[in-house]
Amino acid sequence: MKHYIGPANPMHAQFDALAAYQARHFAYAFDGGVATLTLNRPERKNPLTFDSYAELRDLFRALNSATDVKAVVLTGAGGNFCSGGDVHEIIGPLTKMSMPELLEFTRMTGDLVKAMRLCPQPIVAAIDGICAGAGAMMALASDLRLGTAQARTAFLFTRVGLAGADMGACALLPRLIGQGRASELLFTGRAMTAQEGLQWGFFNALHEPDALPGAAHKLAHDLASGPTFAHAMTKTMLHQEWAMTLDQAIEAEAQAQAICMQTHDFTRAYEAFAAKQQPVFQGD
Amino acid sequence: MKHYIGPANPMHAQFDALAAYQARHFAYAFDGGVATLTLNRPERKNPLTFDSYAELRDLFRALNSATDVKAVVLTGAGGNFCSGGDVHEIIGPLTKMSMPELLEFTRMTGDLVKAMRLCPQPIVAAIDGICAGAGAMMALASDLRLGTAQARTAFLFTRVGLAGADMGACALLPRLIGQGRASELLFTGRAMTAQEGLQWGFFNALHEPDALPGAAHKLAHDLASGPTFAHAMTKTMLHQEWAMTLDQAIEAEAQAQAICMQTHDFTRAYEAFAAKQQPVFQGD
Amino acid sequence: MKHYIGPANPMHAQFDALAAYQARHFAYAFDGGVATLTLNRPERKNPLTFDSYAELRDLFRALNSATDVKAVVLTGAGGNFCSGGDVHEIIGPLTKMSMPELLEFTRMTGDLVKAMRLCPQPIVAAIDGICAGAGAMMALASDLRLGTAQARTAFLFTRVGLAGADMGACALLPRLIGQGRASELLFTGRAMTAQEGLQWGFFNALHEPDALPGAAHKLAHDLASGPTFAHAMTKTMLHQEWAMTLDQAIEAEAQAQAICMQTHDFTRAYEAFAAKQQPVFQGD
Repeated sequence: MKHYIGPANPMHAQFDALAAYQARHFAYAFDGGVATLTLNRPERKNPLTFDSYAELRDLFRALNSATDVKAVVLTGAGGNFCSGGDVHEIIGPLTKMSMPELLEFTRMTGDLVKAMRLCPQPIVAAIDGICAGAGAMMALASDLRLGTAQARTAFLFTRVGLAGADMGACALLPRLIGQGRASELLFTGRAMTAQEGLQWGFFNALHEPDALPGAAHKLAHDLASGPTFAHAMTKTMLHQEWAMTLDQAIEAEAQAQAICMQTHDFTRAYEAFAAKQQPVFQGD
Repeated sequence: MKHYIGPANPMHAQFDALAAYQARHFAYAFDGGVATLTLNRPERKNPLTFDSYAELRDLFRALNSATDVKAVVLTGAGGNFCSGGDVHEIIGPLTKMSMPELLEFTRMTGDLVKAMRLCPQPIVAAIDGICAGAGAMMALASDLRLGTAQARTAFLFTRVGLAGADMGACALLPRLIGQGRASELLFTGRAMTAQEGLQWGFFNALHEPDALPGAAHKLAHDLASGPTFAHAMTKTMLHQEWAMTLDQAIEAEAQAQAICMQTHDFTRAYEAFAAKQQPVFQGD
Repeated sequence: MKHYIGPANPMHAQFDALAAYQARHFAYAFDGGVATLTLNRPERKNPLTFDSYAELRDLFRALNSATDVKAVVLTGAGGNFCSGGDVHEIIGPLTKMSMPELLEFTRMTGDLVKAMRLCPQPIVAAIDGICAGAGAMMALASDLRLGTAQARTAFLFTRVGLAGADMGACALLPRLIGQGRASELLFTGRAMTAQEGLQWGFFNALHEPDALPGAAHKLAHDLASGPTFAHAMTKTMLHQEWAMTLDQAIEAEAQAQAICMQTHDFTRAYEAFAAKQQPVFQGD
């Protein structure tokens, strides 16, 4: 914005810097504005536990005010993305919980999805191998998805006797691949192949396994070097307009874009164009 | 549920059993928890009449409290699915009706779609040949759609001078195949080929005509032997979240899934997994 | 309608006839109920200016009460559709505006989309070559889209430092091509190829460049000779049901279709069918 930003801004004192974040339940790396989260229990295909769920939720919440992180890559170690909630560490204990405890758990997992949708950074999921259950939901809650031909994505909930309604699946999946295909995947729990995922709009592109990390990081770095204030507004409005009428959405965008037209990045782009140069965006 | 279900449940006294239902305006069969409804005036490509509309609506409403039916197959006899409202028995009389009578008719047809969406059983439509008008709407209101290469699906309303807005078409069709393709089919009334239907997400799969009934019944029986309480919740939430914000949908699913985590089927699945066996679901 | 329409209808006195409209900032032609709007600054790939934006908005608003125009073709001259807001005539001045001036501009561009969605005529966009920025939004706001293999559609806003949230893009684009693909196009600004646009449901069909104008006019004339009162209701309901629950949409369509069942066109279609003839629709 033109008038109220920069190092002297007193609001920045409360902002977190996450470049040096030390993760406990997954691997974390930071490079050039891009944070990379790697689920890393490869011997079990990177399952989620109560602890990793909670840490992921807290980290995505912290990203909401982390001005040093401009984009996120979410991936898994050892040729798989994520096998979902661990059977022994999560499913077993859940079968013994009271209703208040169960609701506390399902709200915590839903809060992870909310935090991923509400943080301003675009999230690029890099998906090889197994992408199942809550892992499939983390892929679905990302902004962009790159896969490999070996990626197998399954909304497994029905296989453990549960509903396909988990972490927002019945709302999110139909918006990406259509109500009919989503119904099949959620009722049957069958795996969507990588090729189906590409044809249906779940994956943005497929890459060779060796090339996947590089492709995901290139995309994330491209986004991180773009107009990140505007990117955050794009993400906000894609979320915000989910259940608006079209007329309401048009008015909401008139306001959102007018705000973006007062950023320096907009002026930078115009001046670069006039000088026949590439703009260098700075996110303000 | 753990504490309040079973043969002694006094609420069950009011529930209907539909295994032995005797249909008047179509064929009805029941086997292993799967009810099969077959439109059977093949010499006219299975048109709907005032009577068959009303009986279908009443049957799908009764399914809401029928605990013996776990899944439904909807199909047509003689190589066609359904040709829609009969020209002589429906269109002709409609041209002579008063507004209150017309609204009574359009609400009755809409009530059929509502009853299909509100019954807890997944509905598998098995579609060969002609699938037109109100027949196309019954296919669209089903949960899953299997077709053949000969299936021709047309939202014909414009051809008789009416709007594409019939029985919820302007809401349902864009959610399955996208707003642009839906607009074309509804404005022009042209038939969607089977191949288009598969690529666009209308059909879940295509089969040879001979194999279609078997494929539809296998899918329905698989669903019927699954966690049917959870399936019903999946269906409910896919409907319920239609126009929620994403945040509302996530909270709604946190509640819905917490309920499912107190079913016996969830415990059965965990115990089967721990014993390296296949779970046997019982729907409670 | 049966009882209240025709040349003697006093309401018609206020209606505009647009057959003889004289456009100032684009080319306008009228033939057989079809108005053709051609953006025609081909040396700059048909950019929009403040003036052409405003005239387009005003014309689509006037179409709301123009009973002589039954369908619209929107296209560009010289092998391109539209390059979007002119860098020198629009982007430059915007970088110097106050917030009230910016909001006035973004609301004016949004009002163009609203006017395109609210006019009763189906709009067929015929798209060759560049289709970028606000041009891509005009394509998206049309009802049907025909393209060529050379069509390149880009939601370029991010390239000038702005959000993808422009003129309703974050609401419209996901409904046509899915949330995942829309996210990629809006975050990256990359061009969608014609083949992607066809596979993803943005384009209804692709034609050779020579055949494109003819195909667009044939489609528009077919619509113009159809039941245009019912077409207008189809368009209204596709817009109206955008954020309704499914149950609300079904009731809305019960009312909408009951209205259409009292038009002469419905009776004409029935009588033509009974006489084994093609119906001749007249739009009342």
